[in-house]
Amino acid sequence: MKYLFTNIIGSFVLDGKLKIVDSTLFKNVEEHKNKEKSEKQLKQKHKAEQLPNEKLHQALLLFKDKQYHQEFYKKNLQLTKQSIKESVNEDNLIVQAISNINELDKINNILTKRLREWYSLYLPELSEEIQSHEKYVELVATKTKEELMKEIGTKETMGADLDKPYVDEMILLAKQIINNYQLRKEHEKYLELIMKRYCPNLLELAGITIGAKLMELGKSLKHLAMLPASTIQLLGAEKALFRHIKTGSRSPKHGIIINHSIVQKAKRNEKGKAARMLADKLSICAKLDYFKGEFKAKEYKKELEENFR
Amino acid sequence: MKYLFTNIIGSFVLDGKLKIVDSTLFKNVEEHKNKEKSEKQLKQKHKAEQLPNEKLHQALLLFKDKQYHQEFYKKNLQLTKQSIKESVNEDNLIVQAISNINELDKINNILTKRLREWYSLYLPELSEEIQSHEKYVELVATKTKEELMKEIGTKETMGADLDKPYVDEMILLAKQIINNYQLRKEHEKYLELIMKRYCPNLLELAGITIGAKLMELGKSLKHLAMLPASTIQLLGAEKALFRHIKTGSRSPKHGIIINHSIVQKAKRNEKGKAARMLADKLSICAKLDYFKGEFKAKEYKKELEENFR
Repeated sequence: MKYLFTNIIGSFVLDGKLKIVDSTLFKNVEEHKNKEKSEKQLKQKHKAEQLPNEKLHQALLLFKDKQYHQEFYKKNLQLTKQSIKESVNEDNLIVQAISNINELDKINNILTKRLREWYSLYLPELSEEIQSHEKYVELVATKTKEELMKEIGTKETMGADLDKPYVDEMILLAKQIINNYQLRKEHEKYLELIMKRYCPNLLELAGITIGAKLMELGKSLKHLAMLPASTIQLLGAEKALFRHIKTGSRSPKHGIIINHSIVQKAKRNEKGKAARMLADKLSICAKLDYFKGEFKAKEYKKELEENFR
Repeated sequence: MKYLFTNIIGSFVLDGKLKIVDSTLFKNVEEHKNKEKSEKQLKQKHKAEQLPNEKLHQALLLFKDKQYHQEFYKKNLQLTKQSIKESVNEDNLIVQAISNINELDKINNILTKRLREWYSLYLPELSEEIQSHEKYVELVATKTKEELMKEIGTKETMGADLDKPYVDEMILLAKQIINNYQLRKEHEKYLELIMKRYCPNLLELAGITIGAKLMELGKSLKHLAMLPASTIQLLGAEKALFRHIKTGSRSPKHGIIINHSIVQKAKRNEKGKAARMLADKLSICAKLDYFKGEFKAKEYKKELEENFR
């Protein structure tokens, strides 16, 4: 009676007393992956059969020997490294990009506030007049004081008359902020590129930013697909949820999906309902995407939009 | 007996009963600034003398009249606007620039950490190997995976094989961080430019960043010049100081001047002494600069460097 036993370093044929009588050693992790081939060869050559489970423990003792130790260590390390390498997927890429978008948003906010304060030494009336951060930065970067005063209709300014090098420094900052906005837009394009292939339903119904944020909050598409719709509805509202559980304050009705246009456009007393129905459909979209189902999101979107207009 | 009385709208000659008999109205704020001229003319014409203080209140009542109200309002507004305009000085410019440097430092830290996490999906070994944030960003922005693996001497990587568009997005981020570093350097040059003219002594002894941070913490050169040396020594250590006062913990020995090379290079048991002596000299430098004194900082610096080496 002969037995066949395979581990990461090779395939082995053992006799009735569990001594090794023949073996094929694997050169690398690839060969281990195609172990069926070498197993078949050895089986035919020796008419061996698979080692029964009750003898497994005894067979493993064979490999306690020092001569195998280094080999085991090396191969295992290789295998682990390969698993890590293969574990990187779209989830990771999406999470990194959306996290950086969040950070860029915060950063642009900080830098624009700084620019407003700084440039207001020169032309305070502009900051008063232009509320939008992005527009403000654009104007500072591209127009002179005179042009700006004309633009906002001021004839006199409380701002100081500063020499060119002093003003240039502010313009440099404005240009850098514009680059940040640009990078944010690039990130959105990039997310769209990945999501179109990886989770087209979620992308279609949730949009780029909300879709990616849901992925970030759900950790991965797989996990998101497993979540109940009621959890998806509250993703991003964890703080309010725990406050509700702890202090009995009102329970939150929506997490980040509050920013979705369908919830935004819904009437005030229907927002909760809109959030619930949107979350239902989003949950289905995540499942469709994870299990490579059909593209249904367009229908869902239309249906919801007709319901809450 | 005739009296002369001047306010922001004009110079007035009053008779003994404090009725207006003659006046010169100011057309604009400039004329009010050169009021001596019109006052002299009226004085000579009417042989009037300055209104004594005890009659001031009565004279002011004259101008409660509605006809003056709008004029007062307009002129006062102009005067205030002009004061604001003139109040902008080097202090403000320095404080804005150094505040932005602080923010850029924080931002670069956040973005580089994000880049490390993101790029580690692709080549995790690099982040392990390169400690310096600036070097890491530079490498990611300029070299390919193969070049980098050669650079750090790795033959195999646990990082995933990613398509070019996925990697390009990380490189975009790296380039943006490099721009931020660049802007920070520009800000330093700009600070040097202002400080060389405005506070050369402080610049020479404290250096650009510490000098500017002292200005920021002291609010202005004037205020900094008025502070005792012991306060300058602790600027930036307010938290530790108040903790000391409140809980009796050890009192701080140095604020931000801990980062100065003289304190850094001093022996451990002499750091407190070095900070005190440096603060003494910095205090003198601020005074010299504010009162437009000589340039002494080079001597002080040499002296201190010889004391603590």
